[in-house]
Amino acid sequence: MRRFFDPRQLAHAPVQELHNGAFMPYSESPARARDILDALGATEAATDHGAAPIAAVHSADYLAFLASAHARWRAAGRAGDAGGYAWPVVRRRPLALERIDAQIGRYSFDASTPIAEHTWDGAWWSAQTALTALDAVLAGDAAAFALCRPPGHHAGTDYLGGYCYLNNAAIAAQAATAAGRRTAILDVDYHHGNGTQDIFYARGDVFFASLHADPRTDYPYFWGHEDERGEGLGEGATLNIALPHGTRIAAYLAALDTALAAIAAFAPDLLVVSFGADTFVGDPISNLALETADFAPLARRIASLGKPMLVVMEGGYAVDALGGNVAAFLGGL
Amino acid sequence: MRRFFDPRQLAHAPVQELHNGAFMPYSESPARARDILDALGATEAATDHGAAPIAAVHSADYLAFLASAHARWRAAGRAGDAGGYAWPVVRRRPLALERIDAQIGRYSFDASTPIAEHTWDGAWWSAQTALTALDAVLAGDAAAFALCRPPGHHAGTDYLGGYCYLNNAAIAAQAATAAGRRTAILDVDYHHGNGTQDIFYARGDVFFASLHADPRTDYPYFWGHEDERGEGLGEGATLNIALPHGTRIAAYLAALDTALAAIAAFAPDLLVVSFGADTFVGDPISNLALETADFAPLARRIASLGKPMLVVMEGGYAVDALGGNVAAFLGGL
Repeated sequence: MRRFFDPRQLAHAPVQELHNGAFMPYSESPARARDILDALGATEAATDHGAAPIAAVHSADYLAFLASAHARWRAAGRAGDAGGYAWPVVRRRPLALERIDAQIGRYSFDASTPIAEHTWDGAWWSAQTALTALDAVLAGDAAAFALCRPPGHHAGTDYLGGYCYLNNAAIAAQAATAAGRRTAILDVDYHHGNGTQDIFYARGDVFFASLHADPRTDYPYFWGHEDERGEGLGEGATLNIALPHGTRIAAYLAALDTALAAIAAFAPDLLVVSFGADTFVGDPISNLALETADFAPLARRIASLGKPMLVVMEGGYAVDALGGNVAAFLGGL
Repeated sequence: MRRFFDPRQLAHAPVQELHNGAFMPYSESPARARDILDALGATEAATDHGAAPIAAVHSADYLAFLASAHARWRAAGRAGDAGGYAWPVVRRRPLALERIDAQIGRYSFDASTPIAEHTWDGAWWSAQTALTALDAVLAGDAAAFALCRPPGHHAGTDYLGGYCYLNNAAIAAQAATAAGRRTAILDVDYHHGNGTQDIFYARGDVFFASLHADPRTDYPYFWGHEDERGEGLGEGATLNIALPHGTRIAAYLAALDTALAAIAAFAPDLLVVSFGADTFVGDPISNLALETADFAPLARRIASLGKPMLVVMEGGYAVDALGGNVAAFLGGL
């Protein structure tokens, strides 16, 4: 299976995040990508597909904000990475906001996702890596792997959050759709893929299924509840399965079968898998209980759908085990 | 004029707030109230009006959250004051959220308003102080002053923010309305009174007018834009006047006249004034340019309406000048 990664993704390196009342070192570190690279060996670089496939998913105002935010933060006399402190909770709407702090609040939903000096470059090349790996699948490969970092599934049309800035999986799914492939997205990260869900929530042409920790107790809290099933044309094209803390592989696979049956009923031509290794029992910020040896059977179960498959990297924060878990998953395909 | 304050308000003392990317000492300190008390001399204590007038403004779930949040934060093993890190930006709705971090995000809109050990008590007595001062006006006094602290005008039906937890002005206005008084609220704090606006936004029975720094550049950013005029039954019963940085007293009074004319047209029986002294030129977090000597003519202009008036304290962060500014305002009435 071809594997794609662009070294420019490593330049994105925020220092800290706000979590549980205090700043702590940023979990989504460049070391994550390095550990995966060590386990995988050689990867292919991304080719630049330009802004059009990104703009097909994210709003123009959000992209203009994201590309300029860190420079404007510095221009406002601020040190360090850019981060918000106030967020709109009602009547969220387009506003002529001038201050960088206001714009960060408008275009984000947490205080855990700073915009650092090289964030735009890193996010850009992460998205291009997904698009390059998609090319391989569109050209006939049964599967390809995009080592996307920063991850993407928490980023919506016009917001960042959860270490995510550009939604790599959604950008690839949209590009696949534009190429005429009926596309489904399966999100098996520990956390709900709220950004991906929002992007396709009112559309019936892309199916989104997610297995994740129950949002009543786990980030991102405000999305991923099982009664969220899509709206309008998208009614029924979103499937959320919330799992309790401590879930092991047998129960996980049973839930996965439910998602795969729904995807099979949708009859896609192509599957985008948002893969997070933070379902691993040793993950420092997560609470499921999959072992390294579980990732191969999990991957085989997904592969049993028999669809061309793009695997896009999302989370996973047990850095020392991350490469092994990713290699196990890819080995199972 | 009778002046009211309850010493139990002083117990509320958060340590820090997130602002412009870093934690800084909490601006809304007990020292603010002490400086005002030094300037005013004797005050009368609050009488306890119970929960009913508070519950007439704030939702039951929000009040249950606020009363228990700090204890639950401690029960979760956390040190210090409770604060959020993730906020819902779309499809905000009632959810069965179990984790304290999720609930804080659901019931707040910034990372600048921690819930400390004695926050509930302080907010409770701040609201009771407003209700006690209202009693004096309802009994026939031309004016009364409630030294409310913590302030209230950023708190909505179901959210805290901007150093505010219970909306003292809205609670008093609602109580006045229940007592049969047609009530208008004039907010002359530096910042827009977004919580007050939201509480009455769809109602026509309480008029809300606010003079404040332009939200394109100033907190709370997402409210207070001049096109916000109310909705439904409240269409036209909200008036927002946004002022540029550096506004001095002449331009301020001209804008005030516009607000007073609108209030006069509403023909209220009673006026609640949300008074912030952060319009002062020396305020450390604000950018208008009123002098201490300007507060008396400002107050006289408001008094020229000739309505019974409850003055409720909101912001003002130049602690050394705060008492003098408040005394100047009250002296002008």
